[in-house]
Amino acid sequence: MTLTHTFATRAQRMKASEIRELLKLLDQPDIVSFAGGIPDPDLFPATPFKEAMGRALGNGAHAQSLQYSTSEGYLPLRKWITGQMADLGIPCTPDNILITSGSQQALDYLGKLFLSPEDTALVGWPTYLGALGAFNAYEPYFDRLDPATNRPASDYIETARQRGGKVKIAYLSVDFANPTGQTLTLVERENLLALAEDMDCAVIEDAAYQALRYDGAPIPPMLALELQRKGNIDACRTIYCGSFSKTLSPGLRVGWVCAAQTVVSQLVLMKQAGDLHTPTLNQMAVADVAKAGFDAHLSHVREAYKTRRDHMLAALARHMPDGVSWTRPEGGMFIWVTLPRHLNGADLLQQAIASERVAFVPGHAFFADGSGANTLRLSFSNSKPEAIDIGIGRLGKVIDNSLCG
Amino acid sequence: MTLTHTFATRAQRMKASEIRELLKLLDQPDIVSFAGGIPDPDLFPATPFKEAMGRALGNGAHAQSLQYSTSEGYLPLRKWITGQMADLGIPCTPDNILITSGSQQALDYLGKLFLSPEDTALVGWPTYLGALGAFNAYEPYFDRLDPATNRPASDYIETARQRGGKVKIAYLSVDFANPTGQTLTLVERENLLALAEDMDCAVIEDAAYQALRYDGAPIPPMLALELQRKGNIDACRTIYCGSFSKTLSPGLRVGWVCAAQTVVSQLVLMKQAGDLHTPTLNQMAVADVAKAGFDAHLSHVREAYKTRRDHMLAALARHMPDGVSWTRPEGGMFIWVTLPRHLNGADLLQQAIASERVAFVPGHAFFADGSGANTLRLSFSNSKPEAIDIGIGRLGKVIDNSLCG
Repeated sequence: MTLTHTFATRAQRMKASEIRELLKLLDQPDIVSFAGGIPDPDLFPATPFKEAMGRALGNGAHAQSLQYSTSEGYLPLRKWITGQMADLGIPCTPDNILITSGSQQALDYLGKLFLSPEDTALVGWPTYLGALGAFNAYEPYFDRLDPATNRPASDYIETARQRGGKVKIAYLSVDFANPTGQTLTLVERENLLALAEDMDCAVIEDAAYQALRYDGAPIPPMLALELQRKGNIDACRTIYCGSFSKTLSPGLRVGWVCAAQTVVSQLVLMKQAGDLHTPTLNQMAVADVAKAGFDAHLSHVREAYKTRRDHMLAALARHMPDGVSWTRPEGGMFIWVTLPRHLNGADLLQQAIASERVAFVPGHAFFADGSGANTLRLSFSNSKPEAIDIGIGRLGKVIDNSLCG
Repeated sequence: MTLTHTFATRAQRMKASEIRELLKLLDQPDIVSFAGGIPDPDLFPATPFKEAMGRALGNGAHAQSLQYSTSEGYLPLRKWITGQMADLGIPCTPDNILITSGSQQALDYLGKLFLSPEDTALVGWPTYLGALGAFNAYEPYFDRLDPATNRPASDYIETARQRGGKVKIAYLSVDFANPTGQTLTLVERENLLALAEDMDCAVIEDAAYQALRYDGAPIPPMLALELQRKGNIDACRTIYCGSFSKTLSPGLRVGWVCAAQTVVSQLVLMKQAGDLHTPTLNQMAVADVAKAGFDAHLSHVREAYKTRRDHMLAALARHMPDGVSWTRPEGGMFIWVTLPRHLNGADLLQQAIASERVAFVPGHAFFADGSGANTLRLSFSNSKPEAIDIGIGRLGKVIDNSLCG
C-alpha cells in the first residue's frame, strides 16, 4: 500500500477501537443500548446556546468570534473557570488555565508533553479507553495503578527502569470513573499523592464526570489536596483536566487544563503547534451560557441522571442472577458489572444483540493488558427510565441463559 | 521547577515563537501593521453564519449539533468538499476526506503519522512557521526543498540516512505560499512529484491559500497532477490539506485532508485519540454556509484582497529604495521583501516601530536554519488601501534611513 510502509512506528500502535466499530452497528431503533457513554441531548441547553451564538455573531462581535485568537484560550472563559476551581478548593489565576478542545485533547497533549518512547504511564485496570488511545501514540509502557494495594514507589520505578524509561504520569479519574463509576476515597487520594511524590511523576486528574455527583459528600480533587500540602498551585504536580462535555455539550469540544504555570505554558506551545486554538466562537458561547446559569442547568442534569441511575440499580437488583455483581456509583454515567469468571462479555454481547436486542460494552477493552473478559460497562445517561427497566430485564435473561447454557 | 525536568525530549524543541510574542506587542492603534497574516473580519460572512447556527440549534437539530459525532467528520460537509476537489481535478469520495480543526491540525497529525525522531522533513527555505512548529514536536531533521535546483533524490536520501533516518515528508504550499507569496510552476510541480517518487516519501500539499487567486491561470494542485499520472487517488502519495480559514472564518477551526484512504483511515485514528472530532456545530454551520454561497462569497473576498495587493505593490514601487526587491504574488495574503544583504529585518522592525509606527515580520523565523536575516514578510490582507499607502511610505522611510545610517 502506498505510504503505509513509511508511517512512524507509533502508527502501528494506533488501531481502530473495537468498541467504536461496535457502536456503529448499534444504531438500530429496536436495540436498547447502554453502550455509548454519551449525554442525553434532551438535556443540552439548546436555546441558551442559540441565543449565545446570536450574540457572539451579532453587532460586530463576529470580528472576534470568527477570527483567530490566542492559544491559551478566551480570557473571560478562563476567568470564569478560575471561579469554579476556587469553589473546588483550587485558587488559581487564568495563567493556570489552558482551554482545550475537550479533555481528550488535554490527554493527547499531556502524553505529548511527558512521554518519550519506553517511558511508563500508570493507569487503572480498567481505565478510560480514550486515555489509553491518547497515550499510546507516544509509545509508552503501561503499568497498573491500583490505589487498593500498597505497592511501593520503588517497585513502580524499578519496573519502569527495566523497560528502559521512567514513570512519567499517573492517570486517573477520581470521581465516578469511566468505566467503573467508582470514586476514590480521601485516603486513597492522599496515598496516591504520596506515591506520585516518591515517583517524581505528574498526576493527571481527569475530572470529566466530577460535576455529576448525585449523592454522598464531595471529596476534594487531588489538585486541591496537593495544594493544601504545598500552598501554591505552581508547586503542584497534579494536572486537572476539566470538561464541559458532560455538563453543557460535548459537540462544542471545550475543556480545560488547570495546572502549574510551567506546565500550562508548555501546553500552550503544544496547542499552538497542534491546532492554534480552540474555536473562538465556541469558547465565547460556553462562557456566555455558563455565566448565565451553569448551576441551575447542572441541577437539572443531575436530577435526570440520578433518576436513571436509581432505575438501573433497582432493575439490576431485580433481574441479575446470583454470581453477578455491580458497582453503585454516586454519580457519573456508568455502572460496571462483573460476571461469573467463566462468562465472556464479548460473547455475551453477540448473544444479547441477536436474541434480546440489548447492548453494552464488553469490559476487556478498558484494560491495558486485555484482561477483564468477564466484565461489562452499562451507561445509564442516555436511556429513559422505562427503557432502562426493559433493557436490564433483557440483559438478565441473556445472562441467565448463558449461565444455564 | 516542578515537573519540567520530567518533560519528554520533544518539549525542549518547542519554544515560544518570537513572532507570536512580537505580535502581542503590536496591538496599538497608531501602528500600521502588516505583521499578522490574518483575514479581514469585515469580510467574514457573519450573517450567514448567524443564520446557520440558528438552524443547527433549532427544531431539534441541537440533538446532533451539540452531541458527539464521528472522528471522520460531518458527512454532508465531506460530500460538499468532494465536489470542490472534483472541480480541482481530484475526483474522490468522502472516504478520502477527514475534517480537521483547521489545516494546522492536519500538519500536526501528519507529522505524528510519518515522523519518528531523526527522520527528515523537507521544507522550503523559508516556509510556513506553523509547519516547522507542528513537525518539530516529532523531532525530525529538516532539509531544504528547493524546486529551483536539481538536487537529486539520492542526495536527499543519503543526507537523511547519515542523520539516522529517512526522508518521510516533503512539505510545501504551492500557491501564494506563506511567507513568500510565490507559486510553483507546472514544471516545478511535476519535478517535485518525480523527486518524491524517487525518495518514496509523502508530499504534503498545503492549500490554505489556493482559493485566493487574483490573476493568472490556475495551475492544477500537486494531487491533481499525481492523479493524472496514477489514475486513482488511493495510489497517490500527495496529501492535500485544505482550510476554510482564509475563505470563510479562521475562528471556527475547520479544515480538511484529502488523500488516499490508507492515509485518511490512519489519520482518523489520530483524530480519535487526539480530540475525538472537530466540533459538530462548526462543521454543520460551515457546510450550510458553503452550500448556500461559497463561490459568491469567494468572489467578494478575492476582489477586496486583489485591490489591497495592487495597492501594496504600487506603494512598494513608489517608496522602496534601490537594492530592495519583492515578490509579485498572483494571490494569497503576502509579499516577501528582500533587503540589501547587510540589513537585518529584526533590527529594522525595532526601528520601524520606534520611529515610524509601522510593523512587519522579520523573515529569519521562517527559515529552518535561521538564515534569511535580510528578509521580511508583509501581509496586505487585513489593511485597508489607505493604510497600505501610509504604511509602505513609512516603511520606505525606515529602510532609507537604515541604508543611509
